Amino acid sequence: MIGIDWGTTSFRAYRIARDGAIRDQRASRRGILNVPDGRFGDTLREEIGPWLAAGEEHVLLSGMIGSRQGWKEAPYLPCPAGGTDIAGALVDIAFDWARVKLVPGLSGTDPSGTAEVMRGEETQVLGALPSLGGSAVCCLPGTHSKWVQVTDGRIVGFSTHMTGEVYGALRGHTILGRMMRDGPADGASFDAGMQRSGEPGGLLHHLFGVRALGLAERLADADAPAYLSGILIGHEVRAALAGATGTVVHVIGAPELTALYARVISACGGFAERHDGEAAARGLALIGAHAAWT
Amino acid sequence: MIGIDWGTTSFRAYRIARDGAIRDQRASRRGILNVPDGRFGDTLREEIGPWLAAGEEHVLLSGMIGSRQGWKEAPYLPCPAGGTDIAGALVDIAFDWARVKLVPGLSGTDPSGTAEVMRGEETQVLGALPSLGGSAVCCLPGTHSKWVQVTDGRIVGFSTHMTGEVYGALRGHTILGRMMRDGPADGASFDAGMQRSGEPGGLLHHLFGVRALGLAERLADADAPAYLSGILIGHEVRAALAGATGTVVHVIGAPELTALYARVISACGGFAERHDGEAAARGLALIGAHAAWT
Repeated sequence: MIGIDWGTTSFRAYRIARDGAIRDQRASRRGILNVPDGRFGDTLREEIGPWLAAGEEHVLLSGMIGSRQGWKEAPYLPCPAGGTDIAGALVDIAFDWARVKLVPGLSGTDPSGTAEVMRGEETQVLGALPSLGGSAVCCLPGTHSKWVQVTDGRIVGFSTHMTGEVYGALRGHTILGRMMRDGPADGASFDAGMQRSGEPGGLLHHLFGVRALGLAERLADADAPAYLSGILIGHEVRAALAGATGTVVHVIGAPELTALYARVISACGGFAERHDGEAAARGLALIGAHAAWT
Repeated sequence: MIGIDWGTTSFRAYRIARDGAIRDQRASRRGILNVPDGRFGDTLREEIGPWLAAGEEHVLLSGMIGSRQGWKEAPYLPCPAGGTDIAGALVDIAFDWARVKLVPGLSGTDPSGTAEVMRGEETQVLGALPSLGGSAVCCLPGTHSKWVQVTDGRIVGFSTHMTGEVYGALRGHTILGRMMRDGPADGASFDAGMQRSGEPGGLLHHLFGVRALGLAERLADADAPAYLSGILIGHEVRAALAGATGTVVHVIGAPELTALYARVISACGGFAERHDGEAAARGLALIGAHAAWT
C-alpha cells in the first residue's frame, strides 16, 4: 500500500510492504495550500505515479487533506479512538488510478472539557503506540503542538498549544522580530528562555523581555530567536505537565525539535523519550492493515 | 507651556495654564512612525504653530519621540524616579521657535530583576499621582501594557506585558484571525475568555481554543475577537496580580480599555480605580513646573 501524510505545507508519501516495512518514500512542498484549484487528484498522480504503475492499488491519506480546505472533508471521529476505530471510519475518495481512503481527524476535549481537534497527529500516535505500551502521554511539537493522552491503546483526550504559529507571528509581525538575526537554536540562550518561563510574570511579560534585554545589550540579536523559542516551549511544557514530576512524555517528530522539547521536559522534572517522524508511516501501515479495501 | 505626548502612532498636544489647567488640546495621527525623513521640527511647528504665535515659549515632549527612532535620544533615567528626578533629567532640543525639552524614559527591573524600559508612561503615572497617594500599583493598558509600582511618590519598578501587540499579531497573522469578524468588545464572550484564562493549560493552549470552539460551532466569528481579548487580558492581569487579592490597581488610559481591565481585575479579586487618559497632560504640567527653562 501507499501511505501519505498530506499536510498544510508538506506532502510525505511512503510505499509500505505488507509487513509494514517502508520500501520507498518521497516528500515535496505540495501541501494542500500549494495545490492550485483543488487539483489534488492530479497532484497525487504526479507524485506517486511510478508506484501505481508498479502495481500499488491502495492509498491511505492522513492530515489536512481530509479537512474542509482539502480534497474532501472527513468528519472528525470522536475520542476515545484507537486504530480499529479509525480504520472503521475511513472515507472513500473517487480516483481513477487506485482505491483512495482518508483517515478522519479526531475530536475530543482537553482536561477542562474544552473542544479540541486534530488531523494527522492521530496517525503518528498510532504509529508510535507499539513502542509506547497501552497507556502514555505523547507530545507532538510543531505549528500546533499536541499533547495526547493514550489509555489502553486509545486516544482519550488531547490539548493543542499554538506554540509554533505564535513563534512565527511574533518573529514576523512584532517588534521582537525587528531586532533578530538567525543564530543557534539550541544554545545557552534557549536555556535562558526556558529558565525565564519558570519565573513569575507570565508569558506576555516574558515576551517583552526579549526586547528589553536587547535594549539593555544583555541579549545579542543572533541569540534572541533561541531565547524566544525557549520562553515559548518552556511555557508550553510547564503548562502541559502542570507541575507533575516524573511524567514520561513520548515526544514524536523531527529530531531537531524533539531534542529541544526533551531538554525542557527534563528541566521541568519529566522524562522524555524521543520518537522519530517515521511514526506517521507506521501509523498509516497499521490503519491500512485494518482497513476494508474491497 | 505646551505639553506633548508624542508616541509611535499618535501625537497629542496640550496647552497648559500656569495653574496646570488644560486651556486647549489637539491630536493627530502624526506619531513618530508617520513623520517622514525625521522632519520632527517641521511637524511640531505645523501642529502647534498657533499656540507659539500666541506667546507660548516652553514645550515639553514625552513618549517615543525621545527614543532612538525619534527626534533625539533621551537616555533612560534609572528607577527609582519621581517628578523632581525626571524634571532634573530633561534633554534639550534645538528648535528655533520655542524652548523644547524631552522627558527621559525610565529604566528599571521587574520583580525578578529582569531589565525593563518605558517611555511616556512615567509621565502618565506622575499625572495620576496626586490622586494616588504616596504608594500605589498602576496599570497602563495598551500595545505594551505597563504595571508600575509607586512607593513614596517615586516609580520603583515595573513590568511590561505585550498584550496589545500580541493581540494584533494573532488577529492579523495567524489562523485565529481568519475566522474573525468585528463584534462587541465587552460582551459575554470577553467574560468567557477571561474565565478561560483562569483554567489550566496555559496561554498557548487557550489561544488554540479560539479556533477549536469556532470549528465546533460554539464560538461565533463576531464573538471571537472579544473572546481572544478576554483570554489575553485575563492572562496579563492574573500574572500581574500573582494571586494577591485585595490589591488596589489604578488603571490609567482610554475609557474603553480601562473598563475591560477593571472588569478583569475585579473578577480576579482586586479593586480597580480608573483614571482617564488626561493623566499625560497633568504629568507634563507637573514636570514642566519643576523644569529649569532658563
